[in-house]
Amino acid sequence: MPSLIHFTLDPFSRRIRLALAEYRLPVELINEEPWNPSADVLELNPAGTLPIFLENATTAICGIEAIGEFLEETKSALTSLIPGTSFERAETRRLMGWFDGKFYAEVSEPVLTEKLIRRFLPAGQGGGGPDVARVRHAMSRLRWHLSYIGHLADRRPWLAGQYFSLADLAAAAHLSAIDYFGGIPWADYPAAESWYQRMKSRPSFRPLLADTVRGVRPAPHYADLDF
Amino acid sequence: MPSLIHFTLDPFSRRIRLALAEYRLPVELINEEPWNPSADVLELNPAGTLPIFLENATTAICGIEAIGEFLEETKSALTSLIPGTSFERAETRRLMGWFDGKFYAEVSEPVLTEKLIRRFLPAGQGGGGPDVARVRHAMSRLRWHLSYIGHLADRRPWLAGQYFSLADLAAAAHLSAIDYFGGIPWADYPAAESWYQRMKSRPSFRPLLADTVRGVRPAPHYADLDF
Repeated sequence: MPSLIHFTLDPFSRRIRLALAEYRLPVELINEEPWNPSADVLELNPAGTLPIFLENATTAICGIEAIGEFLEETKSALTSLIPGTSFERAETRRLMGWFDGKFYAEVSEPVLTEKLIRRFLPAGQGGGGPDVARVRHAMSRLRWHLSYIGHLADRRPWLAGQYFSLADLAAAAHLSAIDYFGGIPWADYPAAESWYQRMKSRPSFRPLLADTVRGVRPAPHYADLDF
Repeated sequence: MPSLIHFTLDPFSRRIRLALAEYRLPVELINEEPWNPSADVLELNPAGTLPIFLENATTAICGIEAIGEFLEETKSALTSLIPGTSFERAETRRLMGWFDGKFYAEVSEPVLTEKLIRRFLPAGQGGGGPDVARVRHAMSRLRWHLSYIGHLADRRPWLAGQYFSLADLAAAAHLSAIDYFGGIPWADYPAAESWYQRMKSRPSFRPLLADTVRGVRPAPHYADLDF
């Protein structure tokens, strides 16, 4: 069976777990803490990033774009997650780049670093309490992103257009990692909320909502399908 | 004719210019300064990133991964730049992710921000002289990347394996933007140097080496094919 080296709240790992479930490809999950990559992980992926998809014991695929495209090229017999014309595929990829570049830098990375990763780092390597101002700034940028998601969801059946795609999974993966800590102002962005409710109701989402991180409880409404 | 909104020393713009030349697709180039995106650019690409590929007057492709994959899907009749099996294609994409994520964050972004962009920004927005310590740190990270490029170039005909690919163009585009300012310790990394000499000698590279940025002279050896 293929396996995936991942971390529960890593948005990139979450996207690939969702994609694997949508492709109906069972995998063995192997947990890894991204703030302290093991020698095994660095041997497989010198960049040290997660997730790593192991097609078999000797073949590792690394890098979020590489894994997404590899799965689409080799596992999409039943379901395509980069569907449509070349223009439609470009829109899916543009939005993946948006969430992995802009949303990650402005929202996911600061929230995850401050609220989660600092708890596990030694004091000399940035460990300690969260930088509250950094979290506040990220949560204010989040509003702008929720408004953009709502803008797209208002005009299109799915974020990239007429088809459900990796763009929806990318966005939902990032948002779900933040949502673990609560504080997303869903009520102010009804179009984004209703799109996210559709995402959260998919069977592929179920396992992510059941996962927890040691020592960090999810926000009360994290796993609710009506939130 | 298609057009490309780009900035001369932007590594992402450079990669797509190189790819278009390798695909033998003539384009009209439209200059843009990325530190001050125009309303037109933000209308085409709300992320404000360059380059933007305009297939025609009404269709813009945005996002570096989206543009690369779009060109490969639609323009690769003569030359493929993501060639090979799905595993080989994954390696090309892993390395593109490496250069656009890790190399950009550690080397290109700090060098370009400090040595170039600060000159053009108003004082209140980060304009002024370079942060010399930040440049020094980036140039020390560059050594590690040159050693990784040499490691790959020593073992493979091209960076991603047996085929010339977008991974070579991604790496060369980032390096060439840094090389404009000089100071790359090529002599210490002969395998990387000899790979870069091969890249620089390609006809696709010629126009990039002739380009200059207003008010900033390139290092003396920037355009030499023997350096």
